[in-house]
Amino acid sequence: MSICYVNGRYLPLAHASVNVQDRGYQFADGIYEVIAVKNGQLWDEEWHLDRLERSLAEVQIAMPCTRPALKHIIRQVIQQNCNVEGGLYLQVSRGVASRDFAFPKPAPKPSLVVYIMPRRLGQSTKGVRVITIPDMRWKRCDIKSIALLAPVLGKQQAKEAGAFEAWQYVDGIITEGTSSNAWIVKNNTIITHPASPAILNGITRMRLLALAKENGIAIEERPFTVAEAHDADEAFASASTMVVVPIIKIDDAVIGNGNVGALTMRLRGLYEEAFKKLITD
Amino acid sequence: MSICYVNGRYLPLAHASVNVQDRGYQFADGIYEVIAVKNGQLWDEEWHLDRLERSLAEVQIAMPCTRPALKHIIRQVIQQNCNVEGGLYLQVSRGVASRDFAFPKPAPKPSLVVYIMPRRLGQSTKGVRVITIPDMRWKRCDIKSIALLAPVLGKQQAKEAGAFEAWQYVDGIITEGTSSNAWIVKNNTIITHPASPAILNGITRMRLLALAKENGIAIEERPFTVAEAHDADEAFASASTMVVVPIIKIDDAVIGNGNVGALTMRLRGLYEEAFKKLITD
Repeated sequence: MSICYVNGRYLPLAHASVNVQDRGYQFADGIYEVIAVKNGQLWDEEWHLDRLERSLAEVQIAMPCTRPALKHIIRQVIQQNCNVEGGLYLQVSRGVASRDFAFPKPAPKPSLVVYIMPRRLGQSTKGVRVITIPDMRWKRCDIKSIALLAPVLGKQQAKEAGAFEAWQYVDGIITEGTSSNAWIVKNNTIITHPASPAILNGITRMRLLALAKENGIAIEERPFTVAEAHDADEAFASASTMVVVPIIKIDDAVIGNGNVGALTMRLRGLYEEAFKKLITD
Repeated sequence: MSICYVNGRYLPLAHASVNVQDRGYQFADGIYEVIAVKNGQLWDEEWHLDRLERSLAEVQIAMPCTRPALKHIIRQVIQQNCNVEGGLYLQVSRGVASRDFAFPKPAPKPSLVVYIMPRRLGQSTKGVRVITIPDMRWKRCDIKSIALLAPVLGKQQAKEAGAFEAWQYVDGIITEGTSSNAWIVKNNTIITHPASPAILNGITRMRLLALAKENGIAIEERPFTVAEAHDADEAFASASTMVVVPIIKIDDAVIGNGNVGALTMRLRGLYEEAFKKLITD
């Protein structure tokens, strides 16, 4: 039975509830994070909490508690769920108030929900297919908000096309996947959209860039087109729980020789090595 | 004490809750309507329910029950709230499921919430000020979804500027307000953005267009610029509970002679007359 922290209580997930006037429910007025957790260890927790604080600040929601208190709650949730492997889901909304678009005054207490989505981390190593779709989202994708209807519709479109993910594009430029960052490899250089309001700056994205730099792998953080993606030598997606997923087909274009890319697997290996080290430290 | 319908039960609003895994809470995966209600009568109920069904169909959420059953629930809520005047709030989400971007399979039962936000309808007849801001929203504003974080931030920006509302623009074209449609009057013609994915086709907007047509008032449904708005003879906002709100200043530009516009008040009068008729029928 999954245990969920919700506004001061630890409850079975099925009984964890929030008021219908929670602004997360009526206005998507909230922020979330998903942190990979395994053997009781969190991957890049500080970076995730830094990003949480940044997103909250961008929409002027206060932290629901101090960072040490939040880390304590996170650890309680991990312990109460018997160190299950998965994605630790953390959501903060502006709280409960009578419905009105502007921020309530005085500010209500922000709502906090923390639980674990059990899943095996980084499980897809065989190549997958992605499709490309127009990016329908708002103009502040750098804020990790719960206003996720556009990505929901995009991911569903991918699923119906028999694909793993949908890469979104604006004016022919790939921004990112619906729940992952998008990468291509050309001439042994890894290429990904620069951090900007057009994408979420993924924690796994940042970690992979750091690892590539440390290991002398050439990087270009620059916009790339759908046509460049179709013509890439390799391609992959990154996100916290999927880690690095090799892509062998984009729309109908076979990528490289149709096999999982060597540089892709090297990066995945470097990431796994980094976190094995973290866990054994 | 306000009574709220939530998934089969009528409860005090403060005790009406939904599960934290409701997709409305985690993904803004839901649709809403606000219907003006007074003396137990709903204004343009059928048009609102038509739009609800259309929005739900666009995101492939099933109606939570048949339309007659929904109308019965709405009437129960009105009766249990002693015919209070206000905005009847109705929200449907895709329901509760383990968190995953794509639609859950099999589809969960959609969640339904109905309650009344008590307020006096159409209360602002003195002129107000609006500001103009960049439109940050997604590309399907014709769907009345609960993914409202961009409008929340826009309305807050208006409030902090001491304004009533913010009119959003794309490439210099005014689309609409954060929770109302935008109108200007020039040379006795009322001008408003055409229905398109860039705006929500307001029910009050549609009703006002019908009343203008019936009463021989010239209409142009066409895009208009921020500069045109600044130079307008009159301006107003429309929405279900605010009805018609005269605007006398846009940014720093005084509209017309700085007084509430005559055609604006004529339209407001026609609307009030139409609904007085409806109520006494």
